Amino acid sequence: MPDPLRVGILGVGGYTGAELVRLLHGHPKLALAYAAAKERSGRRLADVLPSMEGIAEVMDLPVERFEPEHAEALAKRLDVVFSALPHGSSAVLSGALYDAGLCVVDLSADFRLHDVETYERWYGPHPRPDLLPLAVYGLPELHRDRLRGARLIAAPGCYPTSAVLALAPLLRERLVEPSHIIIDAKSGVSGAGRTATESTHYPECAEGLRPYRVGGSHRHLPEIEQELSLEAAQSISVVFTPHLVPMTRGILTTVYGVARPGVTAATCREAAKALYGSGLVGVLDEPRLPDTLWVRGSARALLAYALDAHAGVMVGFCAEDNLGKGAAAQAIQSLNIALGWPEALGLPLMAAFP
Amino acid sequence: MPDPLRVGILGVGGYTGAELVRLLHGHPKLALAYAAAKERSGRRLADVLPSMEGIAEVMDLPVERFEPEHAEALAKRLDVVFSALPHGSSAVLSGALYDAGLCVVDLSADFRLHDVETYERWYGPHPRPDLLPLAVYGLPELHRDRLRGARLIAAPGCYPTSAVLALAPLLRERLVEPSHIIIDAKSGVSGAGRTATESTHYPECAEGLRPYRVGGSHRHLPEIEQELSLEAAQSISVVFTPHLVPMTRGILTTVYGVARPGVTAATCREAAKALYGSGLVGVLDEPRLPDTLWVRGSARALLAYALDAHAGVMVGFCAEDNLGKGAAAQAIQSLNIALGWPEALGLPLMAAFP
Amino acid sequence: MPDPLRVGILGVGGYTGAELVRLLHGHPKLALAYAAAKERSGRRLADVLPSMEGIAEVMDLPVERFEPEHAEALAKRLDVVFSALPHGSSAVLSGALYDAGLCVVDLSADFRLHDVETYERWYGPHPRPDLLPLAVYGLPELHRDRLRGARLIAAPGCYPTSAVLALAPLLRERLVEPSHIIIDAKSGVSGAGRTATESTHYPECAEGLRPYRVGGSHRHLPEIEQELSLEAAQSISVVFTPHLVPMTRGILTTVYGVARPGVTAATCREAAKALYGSGLVGVLDEPRLPDTLWVRGSARALLAYALDAHAGVMVGFCAEDNLGKGAAAQAIQSLNIALGWPEALGLPLMAAFP
Amino acid sequence: MPDPLRVGILGVGGYTGAELVRLLHGHPKLALAYAAAKERSGRRLADVLPSMEGIAEVMDLPVERFEPEHAEALAKRLDVVFSALPHGSSAVLSGALYDAGLCVVDLSADFRLHDVETYERWYGPHPRPDLLPLAVYGLPELHRDRLRGARLIAAPGCYPTSAVLALAPLLRERLVEPSHIIIDAKSGVSGAGRTATESTHYPECAEGLRPYRVGGSHRHLPEIEQELSLEAAQSISVVFTPHLVPMTRGILTTVYGVARPGVTAATCREAAKALYGSGLVGVLDEPRLPDTLWVRGSARALLAYALDAHAGVMVGFCAEDNLGKGAAAQAIQSLNIALGWPEALGLPLMAAFP
Repeated sequence: MPDPLRVGILGVGGYTGAELVRLLHGHPKLALAYAAAKERSGRRLADVLPSMEGIAEVMDLPVERFEPEHAEALAKRLDVVFSALPHGSSAVLSGALYDAGLCVVDLSADFRLHDVETYERWYGPHPRPDLLPLAVYGLPELHRDRLRGARLIAAPGCYPTSAVLALAPLLRERLVEPSHIIIDAKSGVSGAGRTATESTHYPECAEGLRPYRVGGSHRHLPEIEQELSLEAAQSISVVFTPHLVPMTRGILTTVYGVARPGVTAATCREAAKALYGSGLVGVLDEPRLPDTLWVRGSARALLAYALDAHAGVMVGFCAEDNLGKGAAAQAIQSLNIALGWPEALGLPLMAAFP
Repeated sequence: MPDPLRVGILGVGGYTGAELVRLLHGHPKLALAYAAAKERSGRRLADVLPSMEGIAEVMDLPVERFEPEHAEALAKRLDVVFSALPHGSSAVLSGALYDAGLCVVDLSADFRLHDVETYERWYGPHPRPDLLPLAVYGLPELHRDRLRGARLIAAPGCYPTSAVLALAPLLRERLVEPSHIIIDAKSGVSGAGRTATESTHYPECAEGLRPYRVGGSHRHLPEIEQELSLEAAQSISVVFTPHLVPMTRGILTTVYGVARPGVTAATCREAAKALYGSGLVGVLDEPRLPDTLWVRGSARALLAYALDAHAGVMVGFCAEDNLGKGAAAQAIQSLNIALGWPEALGLPLMAAFP
Repeated sequence: MPDPLRVGILGVGGYTGAELVRLLHGHPKLALAYAAAKERSGRRLADVLPSMEGIAEVMDLPVERFEPEHAEALAKRLDVVFSALPHGSSAVLSGALYDAGLCVVDLSADFRLHDVETYERWYGPHPRPDLLPLAVYGLPELHRDRLRGARLIAAPGCYPTSAVLALAPLLRERLVEPSHIIIDAKSGVSGAGRTATESTHYPECAEGLRPYRVGGSHRHLPEIEQELSLEAAQSISVVFTPHLVPMTRGILTTVYGVARPGVTAATCREAAKALYGSGLVGVLDEPRLPDTLWVRGSARALLAYALDAHAGVMVGFCAEDNLGKGAAAQAIQSLNIALGWPEALGLPLMAAFP
Repeated sequence: MPDPLRVGILGVGGYTGAELVRLLHGHPKLALAYAAAKERSGRRLADVLPSMEGIAEVMDLPVERFEPEHAEALAKRLDVVFSALPHGSSAVLSGALYDAGLCVVDLSADFRLHDVETYERWYGPHPRPDLLPLAVYGLPELHRDRLRGARLIAAPGCYPTSAVLALAPLLRERLVEPSHIIIDAKSGVSGAGRTATESTHYPECAEGLRPYRVGGSHRHLPEIEQELSLEAAQSISVVFTPHLVPMTRGILTTVYGVARPGVTAATCREAAKALYGSGLVGVLDEPRLPDTLWVRGSARALLAYALDAHAGVMVGFCAEDNLGKGAAAQAIQSLNIALGWPEALGLPLMAAFP
């Protein structure tokens, strides 16, 4: 058996970074060889992620501070790098490593939008617009072909993954009208990242449920519309309302679309099964509806559809682990495809229930 | 000061019953004098509701078993009765007490729907259809005038309260189209009642989020449509999707409607403020959005509106405590009005935050 | 009826401050007239505590920044002040208001310890040692007599309240040995205050349970030992181990002491009932054991005792709301006594269950 | 590579059964071939454990009803069986399979106690006392040698695992006195099993913390004392107080013992490291203290020690996942040893953090 590929993680101190460490640890062909973080550098990995204490292979890995000028040297030590850095700085650093020849999976927003103007309207100046045409959007179920051999992968956001997975079969097969699409999404708190804030302070989240960044103001909106427009083969505008739910992991996204005449829930299920095959996206049969608990810690997403016949509206659901299929697991799934491996290689399929 | 009115509770062993006990304890003109339950009868109140242990005024109240033939005798001991029994049996028992002359606030579904056929389609045979025309739907913000002097009050469901409060000003003032209305509601687990089931077992709720009774199958739907049709002065069909959220108390309902031309969030806010005045329904100004934590344990509901301009959709929000404004507190609010008292008399306005 | 006393709160932006606002709102003889905070000043109260939005009496109260030089002027506007500031700065500011003639209830650690050297070993230099002899430790069940007429009240810590309430009757009546006393305490996260930190970030608390400041290093230890030594009439050393539990409110403290010969759980219950009477501290009869849920939001504490006969150890339990009986409610209870009012005046006795 | 061993699970519908399915799925040498349950039989595995829906290898496995008379036939289809049945019935069924020649890992209490009289005092008549002398207590860190080649393994309870791991090095090395040992244990709700009850209903657990089965009345006590007596080489009586904590998975056990002269926390850590080596039990260095979140979903336990010097008491801590190291993972660890494989083979070492 050949040696596993050497993998680096930029931004290892956040939750996506932590999940990448865990998933790499279970991967037969990838081995964590380098970890970097911004504020948390200069310590052992287990000091930054105490759940790693005692895990011999990773606990003593130094958490380094990566600067662009290290790119050439680092490229000699690694084969692949995952960047879980904030947008803006991510493109600078992962871009430097791409230039140095590494295969890059960028989990920030930096390479997700094809249109640089759209990016800059939502995120500010793009440091590496030259790389945008090279990046492949890492939603494997929709872009499997383009991912094969890709060397710059833009891993999707957690909300877009769930919304697009639920809606893609409906739009592609013209089962719902492309107008009046509503996306009502509910996320666990880990989606807000590891930085402590008052709004994610335990006593202000537990027993509380609230919307935020509503009315078309959440940065994941353009990414959702980009992908849905591709599926519908026309420009699509959707309503997207995120909510914060008192749980750590999980996204449940509920989507609504006006059903085309004659379309039933079964039509939608068949379209989804046809599109997603037997991979990491499961489609539940009636009357089963997805629960985030059933995918917690796993690389899978679960879909279901129900027709509200009296109102003529198709309702779709997607449950995923926002750190799993919504981030780290999907990033590895995309890399598996890029490298020509089975796409679920090394990924946990089963949730730890309960 | 005259003696407080003597109050009975049927179904005291459930969560709505428990909340009624708590709220009555703080009410200056109502005094708990009788408590009944079905399976939990034959014990002291504090044995049924252990949080009451040590509360001298109520802890030793016997929990009795009420049968219709006791109605005449009981009517002599009481002035008012709240029924928090399941539908079907509630109408039988609270109906008997109404016949015996008591003022009745029924928190079951039995007297909420004006149309007996609609009731029977969703709930089965109605034991007292004769009383339906006499009942007033106890959503005080919309039916204040009819509540004055009412002797049979049908307290609304927790979901309908939140959905109707958010949508009523929009429909009444024709700020959104009456078609394509979506109601995406998220409830804490106490809304499912006190009976232990696998789906409400702690390990299967914590860290889990799931839809249930989707596609127009939840029994609160006809009640929502009845009230919204009244507001819109035309028959309205809506999509209603309930979700179960890992918290004990609270409902956050998100509503979507196609905005009429020129309508802004401010238009909706002003309409809501005009409709609800300075009572128990607050309307938040931008950019504030409601959080169930801000109404936990209180009798208030909080609304907010945001326009998604690019999609032309108005998004409304309502946060309430499902046991407070969504059940027990609203029942008392309606009774206060019926009795000619200030409507917030004795009700907690402030949440216990955090 | 005379006008209510005018009350100020220093440190209104924290959780104890918030709970004081709520409890004062329900108090018939105290009215909030002034609110100050350090970092959160310059805004309306409802901007600092959003759950107050819409509560007409308090929402627009300006949150001011209080400096010692304002003491004389402020003293003219108020009768009583509660200080929920951090230790050190609390003594400076509440001390200035005491000097200016106000009745002061200080909820910081500053006036709890009688011995200035002990204070300084745990907290650093004491800014107002001159006031220490004047302060009364506000655990009403043990110091009721001294509280009458007191003008400087040191409200106890949340942990000491629970530990001392459970152990006082056992030590006073010599039911357990004064050596080998173990206090194993479990607290909800609001006990850590409102300042966001990584260790109280939602995703790092939910589904996690951990000890902290163990081995005699928690600052509440000297306060516990001071009070227990008074009860035992001899110097007592105890082991105190605090734990952080994934819930917002509540402390459950479990205490262990070697039972003297012949002592049973009933002996301890009787001693506790005799000591605490029919006030805010309830003593549960076997086989009932306390649950923090039964006191959430209330001013009460619940005790229970069980003998482990085979090991000869008495086990005691105390459940309280750390922000209620453990902080704000107890502070008001002490003030009620100081002012000659019934000690439970205006305080909620019933938890909001569930 | 030889075929994996064929494994059956009795009691697959409970949480321990579910965790066994998950862990077996990741094990390279064990393959789930048979599943049985009592009340949930007659359905597909994914109907009983919906998180398995879509997992091709297991979802369609029929959940059968196993009776003793099937033992001979079943023994031909399997190599190993795990029994996660309730005590009493477990011994009957797993005993029959043992008789039929299978290797049996019994996770009930039935084979844990060496003394049949002790068993019968706590659990009632023992159906298979003849097997007691053959069973090996499956706490691998203490009984590794006896586990090699064992064919009947009694997997320990979740509480005993944590208490014994924390105390064994202290008693074996005589670092604490064998009298006055206190075990204060806090468990997540999954420890109570999957059967829905009012006391484990979500609204009565969330935001609640309570002791239960105190005063020496919990059935795990004799098992703890049996193992600690072995370690201390003398009969030991301990105080054991379990508490229910609002989280799904995890046990944090805090133990207290009178420190022998000169013993420090470092002494205890070294003793624990020497005893446990580099296996599944980690020992944290000061000042780190364990958190159940750091072992959630993993097969590991974490220990720490702190001396309360002023009281002369050693405080020890053990964090584990009650379904992992406290049940299913430890059962597999024991089987790995029995079969001569590396003891951590196939087990997850890393928690899914957060």
